[in-house]
Amino acid sequence: MPAEFHPRTKVTTESIFSRMSRLALQHGAINLGQGFPSNPPPGFLLEAARRALGRVDQYTPPPGLPALREALAEDLGVTPEQVIVTAGATEALSSLADSLYGEGDEVVMLEPYFDAYLPQTLMVGAKPVLVPMRLQPTDSGSPGGGWELDLEALEAAITPRSKVLLLNSPYNPTGSVFSREELEAIVALARRHDLWVISDEVYDELYFGAPPTPLRTLAPERVFTVGSAGKRLEATGWRIGWIVTPPGLAPEVAGMRQWSSFCSAAPLQAAVAEALPLARAEGFYAELRESYGRRKDLLAQGLRGMGLEVFEPQGTYFLTVRMPEIGAEVLVQEARVAIIPGSAFYASSPPPQGLYRFAFCKTADDIEQALERLERFLRVRG
Amino acid sequence: MPAEFHPRTKVTTESIFSRMSRLALQHGAINLGQGFPSNPPPGFLLEAARRALGRVDQYTPPPGLPALREALAEDLGVTPEQVIVTAGATEALSSLADSLYGEGDEVVMLEPYFDAYLPQTLMVGAKPVLVPMRLQPTDSGSPGGGWELDLEALEAAITPRSKVLLLNSPYNPTGSVFSREELEAIVALARRHDLWVISDEVYDELYFGAPPTPLRTLAPERVFTVGSAGKRLEATGWRIGWIVTPPGLAPEVAGMRQWSSFCSAAPLQAAVAEALPLARAEGFYAELRESYGRRKDLLAQGLRGMGLEVFEPQGTYFLTVRMPEIGAEVLVQEARVAIIPGSAFYASSPPPQGLYRFAFCKTADDIEQALERLERFLRVRG
Ligand SMILES: Cc1ncc(COP(=O)(O)O)c(C=O)c1O
Ligand SMILES: Cc1ncc(COP(=O)(O)O)c(C=O)c1O
Repeated sequence: MPAEFHPRTKVTTESIFSRMSRLALQHGAINLGQGFPSNPPPGFLLEAARRALGRVDQYTPPPGLPALREALAEDLGVTPEQVIVTAGATEALSSLADSLYGEGDEVVMLEPYFDAYLPQTLMVGAKPVLVPMRLQPTDSGSPGGGWELDLEALEAAITPRSKVLLLNSPYNPTGSVFSREELEAIVALARRHDLWVISDEVYDELYFGAPPTPLRTLAPERVFTVGSAGKRLEATGWRIGWIVTPPGLAPEVAGMRQWSSFCSAAPLQAAVAEALPLARAEGFYAELRESYGRRKDLLAQGLRGMGLEVFEPQGTYFLTVRMPEIGAEVLVQEARVAIIPGSAFYASSPPPQGLYRFAFCKTADDIEQALERLERFLRVRG
Repeated sequence: MPAEFHPRTKVTTESIFSRMSRLALQHGAINLGQGFPSNPPPGFLLEAARRALGRVDQYTPPPGLPALREALAEDLGVTPEQVIVTAGATEALSSLADSLYGEGDEVVMLEPYFDAYLPQTLMVGAKPVLVPMRLQPTDSGSPGGGWELDLEALEAAITPRSKVLLLNSPYNPTGSVFSREELEAIVALARRHDLWVISDEVYDELYFGAPPTPLRTLAPERVFTVGSAGKRLEATGWRIGWIVTPPGLAPEVAGMRQWSSFCSAAPLQAAVAEALPLARAEGFYAELRESYGRRKDLLAQGLRGMGLEVFEPQGTYFLTVRMPEIGAEVLVQEARVAIIPGSAFYASSPPPQGLYRFAFCKTADDIEQALERLERFLRVRG
């Protein structure tokens, strides 16, 4: 047996999402765990991809097919030069990690956090600094359905080694959407301490109240936006994401992205380029919001009907619930419903007891059946 | 302006291949630079992809769609557990860099080298150690068409900090295919010094003499194989590659791969899974070899006809030539032929004078026209 693996490999194992999806299959459970939709992508996207096959099959430039950079620029109100296409938002985040920080740097992020943030920060040798969201009772009138941003704690976490503020709104797993006032306060703080900001906006079109403010519009000089066609167009497996850089700062990031996977899948890039203006013109996102809104209400009402405390999401396709503390493995095996335990999103502080994240990007049938199974399980368990 | 980019970003700029492709477009040059085929992918692959769209569109497990891991295992004579699907061989190489080495480690590789090797090694903080191939006159009878592996120099380059030997056969840009004897000597050396070996075999089906020996068959315990559906199936833009790990060693590598782009494009994975057994059954690779062999001969004869020294490749779709030293920019602008200067593949030792790499994965028409343009240019220039 030769030399060892690099110690870097210790930062991560199979993600909780992969593990729960695997267990869900194994136990015939309904999978309300991993955030992938049960709908296929829209017809106009599939058609565009079928037409691109056989025409756009070879390497594109690493920052992206020019037509896709242009379509994204148009959609997002930036210039094509600011746009870098990536293999999903996951690669967008990892290329930004490569570009912005390393050994000796600190990355300030909120807790609960999306699971990739921690290993990606550790893999490049930097230190994640976690700032817990405050969790109020859901009837407190807090706009975040109970979750509150603690700006003072956020500022207190900043040190001379802080390099980047990493934010996510609409926020997975809490479902929060930060208000314009909160974002302005965050920007003021980033300016005061001269930090880069990574704004993970993969759920930018998935909100149930007022549209979220793109953070880059408040601080174009320091905000890197991360987006995902997978989330917008219900094609999480296509692996088309993007970064919007501050003006003039794309080449360094594109340089890093080029050596992680060179370019994104060419025919799928071409298809997304065609679909983006269509999705806007045909009101696809508004339909999606309506459809998800209905499923959110179905799930939330069902859970409330069981007497559980539901944190009402303002965006994303996730919802958190407080339940009796039961292992997620027990739930998948015995209730045959796969959901993600809140502890999966916590590392530094003790996770709030009995929190679970449900994904409602599934069919109404699946949601109804999952509710029945869960109710029966909780009843029998007493 | 906030904080600086991480110094890591200094290791790389736009690759020479991207730059030459961009210049080729700009100057209406024939592009014999970047290694992407002018043929579309085979019909059976395109058809499989069209059928997968609308069926396989969501996240696959990070190590790959089970059907693709099984098809690859069958094709390569390994177990599905040893196979990790990646976003092209580029991500295979970068995930191996993440898994195997870092600060303080040395990676021994041959020079000339494929351009990704250097930045990928530097990005994780390790040191590339370059061992020049010996270049003999093409009429020396050397089996590598003039390029010779210097085993003594290779062993002399190994230090206690060496962690990995990174090899490529069939070899881009030289076109060499290492003999079984050479590979056995390399394996003995890796065992003596307890090194991992990364064997980049993306051109495994592209050879003009005896089939290359897969290095893992000689040292299954320490060889990580890298492969590419893009190269095998003429779909470089699809970004489906793979790693074969030694038995039992996949989980750590899959853990790293998961945080670089999560998974590869799902519908294209499904299509490659269907196409791999068909490609074998229908003799697709043999046809490909014949077709490339004809274009290699066309190009080589044309260049020899101009009195140039041609290093005859034993594999890959590249060929190197010795010509008067002319800037590649001058060639693309004035001769309107894009080729890659040999110096792009050298960093430590002075590059051999006047070497150029031609890609012959282009149409016979393009090759003929490029030959004409080059001949005219060289004649006028005198
Ligand atoms: C907040 C957040 N960021 C990033 C991602 C990754 O997105 P992609 O599938 O485009 O890699 C996800 C996926 O669930 C997410 O929830
Ligand atoms: C030797 C070698 N390795 C790796 C690659 C990258 O392959 P892929 O396109 O699958 O990322 C190439 C591409 O030209 C190559 O020549």
